[in-house]
Amino acid sequence: MSGTARRLAHAPSVFGMSQPEPTPLRRPRADRARQVADVLRHQIHAGAFDGGLPAEHDLAAEFFVSRNTIRAALTVLKNEGLIDRGPKVGTQVAVRKYDHGLDALVGLKETFKDYGEVRNEVRAVQRLSAPPAVARRLRLQPGEQVVFIERLRYLGDLPLSLDLTYLAPDIGAEVVTYPLETNDVFALIEQVSGHRLGAATLALEAVSADAHSAATLQVPDGAALLMLERLTSLDDGRPVDLEYIRMRGDRITMRGSLMRSNP
Amino acid sequence: MSGTARRLAHAPSVFGMSQPEPTPLRRPRADRARQVADVLRHQIHAGAFDGGLPAEHDLAAEFFVSRNTIRAALTVLKNEGLIDRGPKVGTQVAVRKYDHGLDALVGLKETFKDYGEVRNEVRAVQRLSAPPAVARRLRLQPGEQVVFIERLRYLGDLPLSLDLTYLAPDIGAEVVTYPLETNDVFALIEQVSGHRLGAATLALEAVSADAHSAATLQVPDGAALLMLERLTSLDDGRPVDLEYIRMRGDRITMRGSLMRSNP
Repeated sequence: MSGTARRLAHAPSVFGMSQPEPTPLRRPRADRARQVADVLRHQIHAGAFDGGLPAEHDLAAEFFVSRNTIRAALTVLKNEGLIDRGPKVGTQVAVRKYDHGLDALVGLKETFKDYGEVRNEVRAVQRLSAPPAVARRLRLQPGEQVVFIERLRYLGDLPLSLDLTYLAPDIGAEVVTYPLETNDVFALIEQVSGHRLGAATLALEAVSADAHSAATLQVPDGAALLMLERLTSLDDGRPVDLEYIRMRGDRITMRGSLMRSNP
Repeated sequence: MSGTARRLAHAPSVFGMSQPEPTPLRRPRADRARQVADVLRHQIHAGAFDGGLPAEHDLAAEFFVSRNTIRAALTVLKNEGLIDRGPKVGTQVAVRKYDHGLDALVGLKETFKDYGEVRNEVRAVQRLSAPPAVARRLRLQPGEQVVFIERLRYLGDLPLSLDLTYLAPDIGAEVVTYPLETNDVFALIEQVSGHRLGAATLALEAVSADAHSAATLQVPDGAALLMLERLTSLDDGRPVDLEYIRMRGDRITMRGSLMRSNP
């Protein structure tokens, strides 16, 4: 921050002396509903409601809002596909989301080992000439041969992510001699290189699924996807693995922690 | 990884001895188009094409694919709203995306200081009774009063994110005595508490914008949003700031780096 913020000079308030007037409590219902929905969403992800959500009047009491606001919040979550509602069954969690670590370089199979079996449908394995933008990231010459792998990754029967992977030629030639259906590429890279992975740079975006990607991942056309571009290096600093990963937004949450950088 | 992967026993290949047969080079065009689009997307974000994208035949040569594949890739990016195409103007970048750090606890104003002025439309400032799930995260009693702030955050005239913030009562009461239109809450927390921020835990999701959030952020209904839940603590470990942030997927990329965790 450049400089220090100045306190407001004459702000009367219910907050105490010299504090600003709060906005009216009667905000639009859609605003209040979103506010409730955001908190509920993370309670759902945390497994707080695996036996079903509390009744509307209980939620209204918990959130200090009206039942109408609760109903509007539940409609938001229902439209996201997160919950089902019915007169007999009440409100049930419809979708389980899985946590993927933002902090550690760990493959999907390693990450989800407690949830079930990760298997990969290998859609492509090929040597190809690296486009200049790919070659640059992997510190190769434009047109140099890289190994390209495309995998649709399942947890049990559920497609979770579509991974496009470019590997440095020497590493890639070794990696593809192992069964890609059942192994994480990260683990194979460490095995064939004799190096540990070092660091990765990553870029995360939210994108709407194009029709073809939607069909592949079995989500509606236009569904929100978490898109990860990740360049991973060995512990000697050499970049060897450039990936473009589309994760189903309704199924994966990325979690991590971070520290305030030094000033 | 549990154990070491076994190499495939008898895999003939163009890759060399005992390596698997690569998949045919003639993959479906939509697959090849996505492959190209993913690389182009990040070149666009990196500003490689600020003067316009190369002609189709140049891109075809760069990517070692047909012009039809390039056209299909550009259609994907056009449908995402990332580029415009026209017979006179060629292919132009339509949208500028801004990088937000995943690594550091830095407010939006501080992050975007080189891009332009961040201003906040303050949609709500109120004291409210903390729902149990919010109270727990902030280590308060259920129903204890917290300070709630809702801001729509602009870079210039462009709405970038909608931030819902719950602050610990003592910190919040002080923070709201400063102009929230022009200050990052992070900076104000440090100023009023006399503490540096310590760490934060965060959860990132891709969600489709509900109608009300879409209208607020000026995006189409159902547009992909990056949704961040972040709990930030002071350097003494006390959690003081719980936020639910919706970022426009078409405008913000979150970037960071990470290290392989120790085995």
